[in-house]
Amino acid sequence: MRFMNNFSFYSPTHYVFGRGAEEQVGELTKAMGAHRVMIVYGMGSAVRSGLIERVKDSLKSAGIKTVEFGGVQPNPIDTKVYEGIGMARAEKIDGLVAVGGGSAIDTAKAIACGVPYNGDFWDFYCGKKTVKEALPLGVVLTIPAAGSEGSGNSVITKVEGLHKLSLRTESALRPKFACLNPEITFTLPPYQTASGIADMMAHIFERYFSQTENVEVTDRLAEGLLKAIIEEAPKVIANPTDYDARANILWSGTLAHNGLCGTGRAEDWVSHFMEHEVSAVYGVTHGAGLAVITPAWMTYMAEHCPAKIAQFGRRVFGIDTVNDREAALQGIGRLRNFFSSIGLPVTFEQLGVPDPDIDLLVAKLHENKGARIGGYYPLTSAETAEIYRLAL
Amino acid sequence: MRFMNNFSFYSPTHYVFGRGAEEQVGELTKAMGAHRVMIVYGMGSAVRSGLIERVKDSLKSAGIKTVEFGGVQPNPIDTKVYEGIGMARAEKIDGLVAVGGGSAIDTAKAIACGVPYNGDFWDFYCGKKTVKEALPLGVVLTIPAAGSEGSGNSVITKVEGLHKLSLRTESALRPKFACLNPEITFTLPPYQTASGIADMMAHIFERYFSQTENVEVTDRLAEGLLKAIIEEAPKVIANPTDYDARANILWSGTLAHNGLCGTGRAEDWVSHFMEHEVSAVYGVTHGAGLAVITPAWMTYMAEHCPAKIAQFGRRVFGIDTVNDREAALQGIGRLRNFFSSIGLPVTFEQLGVPDPDIDLLVAKLHENKGARIGGYYPLTSAETAEIYRLAL
Repeated sequence: MRFMNNFSFYSPTHYVFGRGAEEQVGELTKAMGAHRVMIVYGMGSAVRSGLIERVKDSLKSAGIKTVEFGGVQPNPIDTKVYEGIGMARAEKIDGLVAVGGGSAIDTAKAIACGVPYNGDFWDFYCGKKTVKEALPLGVVLTIPAAGSEGSGNSVITKVEGLHKLSLRTESALRPKFACLNPEITFTLPPYQTASGIADMMAHIFERYFSQTENVEVTDRLAEGLLKAIIEEAPKVIANPTDYDARANILWSGTLAHNGLCGTGRAEDWVSHFMEHEVSAVYGVTHGAGLAVITPAWMTYMAEHCPAKIAQFGRRVFGIDTVNDREAALQGIGRLRNFFSSIGLPVTFEQLGVPDPDIDLLVAKLHENKGARIGGYYPLTSAETAEIYRLAL
Repeated sequence: MRFMNNFSFYSPTHYVFGRGAEEQVGELTKAMGAHRVMIVYGMGSAVRSGLIERVKDSLKSAGIKTVEFGGVQPNPIDTKVYEGIGMARAEKIDGLVAVGGGSAIDTAKAIACGVPYNGDFWDFYCGKKTVKEALPLGVVLTIPAAGSEGSGNSVITKVEGLHKLSLRTESALRPKFACLNPEITFTLPPYQTASGIADMMAHIFERYFSQTENVEVTDRLAEGLLKAIIEEAPKVIANPTDYDARANILWSGTLAHNGLCGTGRAEDWVSHFMEHEVSAVYGVTHGAGLAVITPAWMTYMAEHCPAKIAQFGRRVFGIDTVNDREAALQGIGRLRNFFSSIGLPVTFEQLGVPDPDIDLLVAKLHENKGARIGGYYPLTSAETAEIYRLAL
């Protein structure tokens, strides 16, 4: 059926947004019922900036004990999750606070469901088991990008075989709270800022490009978020300490992926699946990979299923032409120009992968995801190979 | 400060949307921890349609005991709340399920906070006390309008003196769940459908017309919702059983008032305050009253503070003129035409109140709300009187 689909939407994350938001982490952690938490973070920038210390102070003031678990890498891996589960059990923690971006949060989520589970946490990621129980989790966000602070999802790479898989839960892995302070994002380097912007836009695209018809309300919400991001992005690149622009980007990143834009509609996710293979094999930044893959995917669709790509071109970039293919192609051109203007790659070469092993990427993609993939226009391996080539 | 404001957004309502959504009321009520609930409903249409029976069946199947509390009138009143509190205490209920629109839900909310409170529930509405505790509450929505199914707010009229006051809570009075089935709204009469549409649009306007600058993300979300509503409204009036159009309107009504569009910005609410006096004194339908008052308020603003009204005209109706006053006035003209086209009044006369007692309305308004009211452009009693006159 192409009618607006039945749905369930449950987003019980408490967002605390603005200057000093991270100072409330102690009270918020107490409110989620934890007494001894593991602080999960990345490669040390949150330590160097003093943020981890501020978070610990707030937790201490609220009477909460802490253990630290740092060193989570970008494109986070299963071996780190196993390490975290072991430490969490040994330390008898009853909650987690992730301080960082998607990698720290997704690792914390994997630990949160892995600790109470009597088996391999990977069972959840490969679809063998459903998450029934998880430790409560809070977030202090440092990178607006993955949207994991407001989603029930998590993406982890299995080191053996470089399989990057995502787990979706409706609410079991949604953070209980998320502290969102735009000032914390002032020090993000331009490339990371821009990659985050491509990531959040891709989260909207994956829901926007849908075969479900007559879903005007979510179409308009998605288009509105895209317009806001496109308006604000150049400002944060030009002036990294522009508070309002950072605030708009930060809140957009959360709303892009909390599920709202997907309510009642089929979703696509092929660009994400295709990029996951690229970042798993070549270690590129996920958002930068998406800036390369998404326009290539859209270009293929302009020839085969242009309607919604054309609507994007018209409504988001104001393209004024009645021909769908033409409106789509012009919109894609504007999108590529936008990505380039904020310093993102739009080809494999610009991404630093001049000669990708497309056969390998396609083989892993369909091994992980099946013979035909995608909700907007299901694709065979011949077609995904063509899309990878369109990104060369 | 005019920067994007710090905010806290916590919306832990579980939305179950689509055909048959009300059949989940039993399981959802069990999940909110209630065992013996009061079913709160209105003037009997939900009984006649068989909806109350279906709700009771679902609750019974889940092992939940019920008591019924019907007869809640539009513009719900405090005396009914006292009656409900008395019955709830006598019956030892531990939760409520409101079946209806804003009146049933707002009455249920007042009962929910009144039952555990050792004093007069009105203390919460006149700002003397903050709600600390409330019985859990679920909703089966029949009228998309008030947005109370997704808000922490409630509006009740005190019979003595006809004071209509609203209570806002962040999450204490948010429903635990809301069942939203577009098919249930098929039988709504056109005038009630249209009044609901004006009400949800007004909920967006009150947040959209803000002095907070650089809030592009919420500006765009608000504009997107308004565009979707304006697109879908004529369809539900022309064809009351158009499922998708009803679905878009239903979900828009919830999102218009769940707080999302107000995140990080000052709000206005003068049109609502002004209309509350009209419906309290003359008993008109709230949404119809808003279709009269809001354009009048906007017309006054076009002369005194046009910037955001002009943005509305340009972005929502595509008005193409550089002069703010002109863009505002053209946008207001388009809005009045839209309201008229779906059968709504846009003057006091069309509302059935050809000769309103403006002195009385203004006196009550400022007695209830203070000498200067409104977040967008604070208004004296001389100015609100002028706005009432602009609606003649």
